[in-house]
Amino acid sequence: MKLLLKNASILTQDWTVIRDGFLGIDGDTICYLGQDRPQETYDAEKDMSHKLLIPGLYNLHSHSPMSLLRGLGSDLPLDRWLNEAMFPVEARLVEADVAVGTRLSLMEMVASGTVSFTDMYDRTWTTLQEVLDCGMKANLTRPLMAMDPNESYEQNFRVKESFQLVKDIAALNDSRIRCDFGIHAEYTSRTEIVARYAEDCNRLGGRVHLHLSETKKEHEECKQRHGKTPTRWFYDLGVMNLPIIAAHCVWVEDEDIVLLKERNATCVHNPTSNMKLGSGFMPVQKLLGAGVRVCLGTDGSASNNNQNMFEEMHLASVLHNGFNNDATIMKPVEVMTMATRNGAEAQGRTDCGRLAVGCKADVVAIDLDRPHLMPAHDILALLTYSVQGSDVVMTMVDGKILYENGQFLTMDMEKTKFELEAALQRLF
Amino acid sequence: MKLLLKNASILTQDWTVIRDGFLGIDGDTICYLGQDRPQETYDAEKDMSHKLLIPGLYNLHSHSPMSLLRGLGSDLPLDRWLNEAMFPVEARLVEADVAVGTRLSLMEMVASGTVSFTDMYDRTWTTLQEVLDCGMKANLTRPLMAMDPNESYEQNFRVKESFQLVKDIAALNDSRIRCDFGIHAEYTSRTEIVARYAEDCNRLGGRVHLHLSETKKEHEECKQRHGKTPTRWFYDLGVMNLPIIAAHCVWVEDEDIVLLKERNATCVHNPTSNMKLGSGFMPVQKLLGAGVRVCLGTDGSASNNNQNMFEEMHLASVLHNGFNNDATIMKPVEVMTMATRNGAEAQGRTDCGRLAVGCKADVVAIDLDRPHLMPAHDILALLTYSVQGSDVVMTMVDGKILYENGQFLTMDMEKTKFELEAALQRLF
Repeated sequence: MKLLLKNASILTQDWTVIRDGFLGIDGDTICYLGQDRPQETYDAEKDMSHKLLIPGLYNLHSHSPMSLLRGLGSDLPLDRWLNEAMFPVEARLVEADVAVGTRLSLMEMVASGTVSFTDMYDRTWTTLQEVLDCGMKANLTRPLMAMDPNESYEQNFRVKESFQLVKDIAALNDSRIRCDFGIHAEYTSRTEIVARYAEDCNRLGGRVHLHLSETKKEHEECKQRHGKTPTRWFYDLGVMNLPIIAAHCVWVEDEDIVLLKERNATCVHNPTSNMKLGSGFMPVQKLLGAGVRVCLGTDGSASNNNQNMFEEMHLASVLHNGFNNDATIMKPVEVMTMATRNGAEAQGRTDCGRLAVGCKADVVAIDLDRPHLMPAHDILALLTYSVQGSDVVMTMVDGKILYENGQFLTMDMEKTKFELEAALQRLF
Repeated sequence: MKLLLKNASILTQDWTVIRDGFLGIDGDTICYLGQDRPQETYDAEKDMSHKLLIPGLYNLHSHSPMSLLRGLGSDLPLDRWLNEAMFPVEARLVEADVAVGTRLSLMEMVASGTVSFTDMYDRTWTTLQEVLDCGMKANLTRPLMAMDPNESYEQNFRVKESFQLVKDIAALNDSRIRCDFGIHAEYTSRTEIVARYAEDCNRLGGRVHLHLSETKKEHEECKQRHGKTPTRWFYDLGVMNLPIIAAHCVWVEDEDIVLLKERNATCVHNPTSNMKLGSGFMPVQKLLGAGVRVCLGTDGSASNNNQNMFEEMHLASVLHNGFNNDATIMKPVEVMTMATRNGAEAQGRTDCGRLAVGCKADVVAIDLDRPHLMPAHDILALLTYSVQGSDVVMTMVDGKILYENGQFLTMDMEKTKFELEAALQRLF
């Protein structure tokens, strides 16, 4: 099946815009991109007048099932929010709850232009099935936690599940779905268990998704506990011999940044979550200045409370200017790079994250024919400052349309509402 | 004409939610609100199943014509942005440009739930006509600027226009439109001119819209110039004998806050603009703690780059938590109060800003039947953290629907696009 998107504005991989252009798709791959109509014939054509085609967005840190907990305990300080609002409900979750929570996130993501996400939660097989049904891409993680001093490495069921998930996802042989190793965080794991886990991960090869220096408290307590920062602790335990996907990185220090760069780590900026939970400001300029790969993520909907990458792009664009009293700090091109190709790279997807011939057809269409997007003096500024998630009118993954003009083509809204009602009845 | 909105969730003035309720409108006024169907008959009924009715939003600081400049010079530092990107274009604007720029803002505002705004720009009669045609409410300002040392008070044409606009708007005798006095800012006005203007304003009575301590530079330079803060300067010149609507207030000091409270001033928080332009963080907790009325505004689209109050509510909700490393600082109820009744009060509209019998029917409907708004555990948290401007499906002002399900009922999108094209041809 060959599909031609015509009469579109197209954001190319060097961030220029082709006006009234053509983008050809052969199966799951972009086969043509240009100002002129291609010579070859196509099975179907789709008029994209007044639409801007951009590469699909990458949400590099989420806990997708947590949309079920959206808005719970929103006025509580962080520790009471976790202990009183989150943990008691999470302890009661069954698989059907995780399924519907995940699906709400997937619907919100595809409706706001996200094509791939990196997730961390338990009951990961349930999330996996939802992602397979939906058609998005994802790097899933079943993370290690090890707080019980009496539990051995061999006894830790999360270790077992983590490696089982890697095997099961490899067996699918589906390029859309990948599995990353995961360690929840320094403060939820014991040194000897992480050391053993790192050994096994290094033997198998792959990426490691983890939380890093999210709050000042956790960062300082790690220094008291281990005499070193969380970054140095992971480094010394061999975790960073593999590429890590480190969420938050709010309190990383200058020496940590050297280690992150040395090990080709990815730092995921979650601006809404960091603001809402009072965690603080990621030193994004230092990280970018050191050449560290920075991506964007939403975190879970319980601490955001959305899965909308345009909100994260917007916040990342303006926040650091305000914090540093300098209007020139975050440029739209930097933010767009974080939200697209940096995310694809960090997930190990070299043929994704940009609109170019030979790349996967992960294409998002923005409707420019709306008052708040006029005039379009500067497309990159428009994308980071003005476009809303709701301006997305088509989300395509591997050449397959998952969302178009308000309709979910692979997920059932009525069924989801029915299942949500059942979950809420069970839980509350 | 009596209209009954039925089967709606309704956010009442004490911030509780009536489920499956009824809201009755008689002409421009709310005549019924309750759980039970009213006894009296209505001319028409409108089913609002799955919709949440909230009071319309108040945008207390904008420069509405500047949507025409959206995205220009977005990577420049503040002074170069003003001098290289804004001023040269603004100098070329003709009335038709101001008209179409204003209309883009009005369309964006009504489509995202704003019913009233406080504006500051020149060519104010053009903006006035657009507002009248559109049907929104507004407090308009033609602000004083007086930088030429050779120009007397009598010679300053802005002074004349300011008072003429007050007269012309009073003559309209339309409760939707009000006129405020205006002083652009301390740094753009001479002491003797502002003193004379304040005398005349005090004689006439009214409110004064102005910029106050937006940037550290302007705040510190005022102290060098006058030996006092901008707040104390305005206070000493008699400006604050009238209620002021003071935009930004980022750098106000503790003693300024005492004066602002003493004079019943309104401080307008413009979080996106303050972040994007690198101005800094308004001390919103100190202001709220002192009992000062705080409202929300978008500022102009050249420095935002939107007129979407849900973005400001969202940013105001999360920003101060992040800056103060405390997740409990801004509560949804505080943010909702700022965005609705505080705005109405600051505009001098005592019968607006809340859904209650006897109040004006300024009603906004939010479609809750969307994945990113499920589940709805906490309606106020949903409104400030999760709802997008695009979730608005109806905006009603004084009982008249201006926007519904994507359609503008009082403005013409195609005509606006045509006029925009002509304006862009003239200007660029």
